[in-house]
Amino acid sequence: MEEQNHIASAFDRDLEKVQAQIMKMGGLVEDAIRQAAKSLETRDEPLAAQVRAADKVIDKLEAEINENAARVIALRAPTAIDLRMILSVMKISGNLERIGDYAKNMAKRTGVLSQMPPVGDGTAAIRRMARLAEEMLKDSLDAYIRRDAELALDVIARDEELDQMYNALFREFLTFMMEDPRNITACMHMHFIAKNVERMGDHCTSMAEQVVYLVTGARPDDARTKADKTSVKKPD
Amino acid sequence: MEEQNHIASAFDRDLEKVQAQIMKMGGLVEDAIRQAAKSLETRDEPLAAQVRAADKVIDKLEAEINENAARVIALRAPTAIDLRMILSVMKISGNLERIGDYAKNMAKRTGVLSQMPPVGDGTAAIRRMARLAEEMLKDSLDAYIRRDAELALDVIARDEELDQMYNALFREFLTFMMEDPRNITACMHMHFIAKNVERMGDHCTSMAEQVVYLVTGARPDDARTKADKTSVKKPD
Repeated sequence: MEEQNHIASAFDRDLEKVQAQIMKMGGLVEDAIRQAAKSLETRDEPLAAQVRAADKVIDKLEAEINENAARVIALRAPTAIDLRMILSVMKISGNLERIGDYAKNMAKRTGVLSQMPPVGDGTAAIRRMARLAEEMLKDSLDAYIRRDAELALDVIARDEELDQMYNALFREFLTFMMEDPRNITACMHMHFIAKNVERMGDHCTSMAEQVVYLVTGARPDDARTKADKTSVKKPD
Repeated sequence: MEEQNHIASAFDRDLEKVQAQIMKMGGLVEDAIRQAAKSLETRDEPLAAQVRAADKVIDKLEAEINENAARVIALRAPTAIDLRMILSVMKISGNLERIGDYAKNMAKRTGVLSQMPPVGDGTAAIRRMARLAEEMLKDSLDAYIRRDAELALDVIARDEELDQMYNALFREFLTFMMEDPRNITACMHMHFIAKNVERMGDHCTSMAEQVVYLVTGARPDDARTKADKTSVKKPD
């Protein structure tokens, strides 16, 4: 019995260490989102370059986390809920890596957009979207660490808000392009960025869904309607 | 020694079973790419609906594969190369799931694009891109099963070709939009689809990189330049 407790707590210590890395990675990804959106709105090319460079650190952390998680599995041979917990670490680091990639892709377009005249308040609207995505990310990670299913469900609900912001922007960009063809290139880039932020929300939702699954053992209602309407309704 | 052989072959049998599921999943994703591109070009809404429905089967298979892989880890406690092999199964099923999602998203736009007058040979060009992505997928899976690093490196090289096709299409869409604002909405949707196909290639590349890592123990040159130029050069 003592032996078993010993093994259990060794696993818990290992898990905590990997989860601490997840939190560190999450913090870097939050910074990346915020700075990418800021660099876009303020046309701050050095800040954008910083975001692009930081993505390498994020990618390295993901690889480390996966290796450490694999080491824990090999060493402790966890089963049942312990195995699910350690596997979720890999899933979540994968989600974080993708969100980091989207932030990097956003930052890549700062340079090209800075050379064009601004179109409406496009970049400010994108920054508002990014702020929402950043909060969703922070809360989904908090929900994960605290195993808080209620907070996770709240994150899932907020994704619809983000989708609606994206839909509204999509229509706005179409209008700008139709009004003046000189807006087309800038709007194509901004649409691309807005879609990336909307996808960040999807990854936060995926993390939150995992939390719900880990805590309750049940998947959140996957009949949940996707709210990107641009593909089904003809935007006017 | 005999005991060890026994354990090793039990693991190999388990691994083979999960890999067979990967191949089945890969076949479904190949079908999804081909049919989504076809439904787009021929404006075949029932075929698009079929692609969307098939995505649920793909998602279910991914969940099954991950559960089976976790079961193998818990049961056999593999280490070293065996552990890497079984973990790669999870990574690859994740890549396949995303590619399937992109095909589904493509099929979602068939309906809305069918209501608009065609723009140039946009959908035919997308279908050519999709054909290349489908071949990359097939070959990356073959490389995985046969542990063929050479074929995997060939897949990685082909991703640049796909990126160049995307870049050319991006410029073409810009031109169409500037020529006639009535083309804008259709081009926005087609650009979105082309970008999704380009991303399929990224996931094939990621699978191929894993094969190289599994076979040679070394990561393929990650200084490899990304060839989506639309974010760095101002398209003319």
